[in-house]
Amino acid sequence: MRNERFAIGIDIGGSSIKIGTVSESGNVSKKFKITNKGESSINELIKVLDTLVSSYIIGIGIGIAGLINKQSGKILNSPNISFIETINIVDILSERFNLQVFIENDANAAAIGEMWVGAGRDFPNFVLLTLGTGIGGGIIYKKKLLEIPAEIGHMSINSDGYKCTCGNMGCLEAYASANAILSNAINNLEKGRESILKSLHNGNYYKLTVEDIYKSALEGDNLAREILKVAGRYLGIGIANIINIFGPDAVILTGGLTGAWDIYVNEAIKEASRRAFKDLYNKAKIIPSILKDDAGVIGSAYLVLNH
Amino acid sequence: MRNERFAIGIDIGGSSIKIGTVSESGNVSKKFKITNKGESSINELIKVLDTLVSSYIIGIGIGIAGLINKQSGKILNSPNISFIETINIVDILSERFNLQVFIENDANAAAIGEMWVGAGRDFPNFVLLTLGTGIGGGIIYKKKLLEIPAEIGHMSINSDGYKCTCGNMGCLEAYASANAILSNAINNLEKGRESILKSLHNGNYYKLTVEDIYKSALEGDNLAREILKVAGRYLGIGIANIINIFGPDAVILTGGLTGAWDIYVNEAIKEASRRAFKDLYNKAKIIPSILKDDAGVIGSAYLVLNH
Repeated sequence: MRNERFAIGIDIGGSSIKIGTVSESGNVSKKFKITNKGESSINELIKVLDTLVSSYIIGIGIGIAGLINKQSGKILNSPNISFIETINIVDILSERFNLQVFIENDANAAAIGEMWVGAGRDFPNFVLLTLGTGIGGGIIYKKKLLEIPAEIGHMSINSDGYKCTCGNMGCLEAYASANAILSNAINNLEKGRESILKSLHNGNYYKLTVEDIYKSALEGDNLAREILKVAGRYLGIGIANIINIFGPDAVILTGGLTGAWDIYVNEAIKEASRRAFKDLYNKAKIIPSILKDDAGVIGSAYLVLNH
Repeated sequence: MRNERFAIGIDIGGSSIKIGTVSESGNVSKKFKITNKGESSINELIKVLDTLVSSYIIGIGIGIAGLINKQSGKILNSPNISFIETINIVDILSERFNLQVFIENDANAAAIGEMWVGAGRDFPNFVLLTLGTGIGGGIIYKKKLLEIPAEIGHMSINSDGYKCTCGNMGCLEAYASANAILSNAINNLEKGRESILKSLHNGNYYKLTVEDIYKSALEGDNLAREILKVAGRYLGIGIANIINIFGPDAVILTGGLTGAWDIYVNEAIKEASRRAFKDLYNKAKIIPSILKDDAGVIGSAYLVLNH
């Protein structure tokens, strides 16, 4: 029996860093999750990797939210993880562990993961959207990653709308991401809107999470419900644009916000159906990720295992 | 000397139908242009083809504004040439002339033309935008046409904005196309805005053309200038979205509106530079088509000659 080869996948997002060991058949084991607290988290990450690196590990794959120059390993622009622009994570890890290190945009990595062993296995052409702190996109075309930035979260859907962290105005991310939902909730609470959200975290509504909002919505809170629906409607506008441009077989949704599927995503599906070209809409299945939180870790490891 | 093979290329747009004979080296000869007056234009088209079809012609390629099912040859959705949805142009021409007939979206065909012998020759990855009655898109990725709808004109950039002919709201086409420019001019003139546009066509401003507006702008007319700048700004918002999603080497602009480059396109370039990710914007050259009006005819013929 030959020894199976493994790779470590790392998924660096705005709020957390996920790490796992992935087999050649796409199984993930030894999973870790650390909070992304900025540059100090890199030391924590290295401590975790110290425990994982062994002779069976043939390399490290990193998925990271942002615009990446794959040749240099430099992160050109990462609005939600800005510290990462000043360090070269690829050099740091390859020197420390003497392993090949590959880097890819996190949503691209998640799309690869879903294509490999997830919800995208049966779809030659699909668009994956990561719905979390920000909104990312990864596009699979004819069973391969489309090597484009796919910064779908930074597509303006309201040309003179909210200022986005990227400098543009009216980006999808500024309307439909977790950050957008939380800002909308806080704005409303600051204005004195009544809501059970006020009673959470001892009244400190700056500590609200998207989970709080979803739970409150399920308990019948009008404000929470309205905020999720508004964000979902904007997501649907973005999805309609994506359907009209890419005509995919599927739109696969992943990330923390898909936990609020019944309200947020259902509203998005309704809105997309009203807006996209009918024939294209009918072809595109809007479905959840199968790999969920593991998609980025698995897809990042794929970069190493299938190099 | 062996006989060179030729194909006929046909470019069916909202306002005109262009026809030409194209050689294997991409030269176009025997060009015709007929006004698109709806279904009766098909008879006129056939009369032109009667004079062009000969033993050297190995097939016919058609580029047409709209959403196409390439398997069936059916046009699924063509907001600006709706009569074409009710006939099967592929069947009609292949039966009449006993030739292979290929069909492609007109902007895709133009992109292929520019890739083959035009402004896209040196760019592995580019986005072509056709700026005319409507706005179309064609995307070349790694020197090949990306087989996606690329309905960039039907990307909503103002989610609750103008109703578009496609049924969606706030589409780029509803803000930056020739139709949008003319509507904006007429609206302003109906409201009594002063402009030299009023003195053209014996005061019948429903007869205005985009050329009239551009000429008036060059003559210093404030309204004409303002209208072109507003449309150009929206075009720039669309281009920024395209740059953030595709990260192309070039954005190639073609179609009648590029005649107003100095005002309309320059405004677009300024706006895109403010909005797109800086690194992606710097990489993307925004340039005019080389083949101009012939791009669709040449690209359609390529479908036949390189099948």
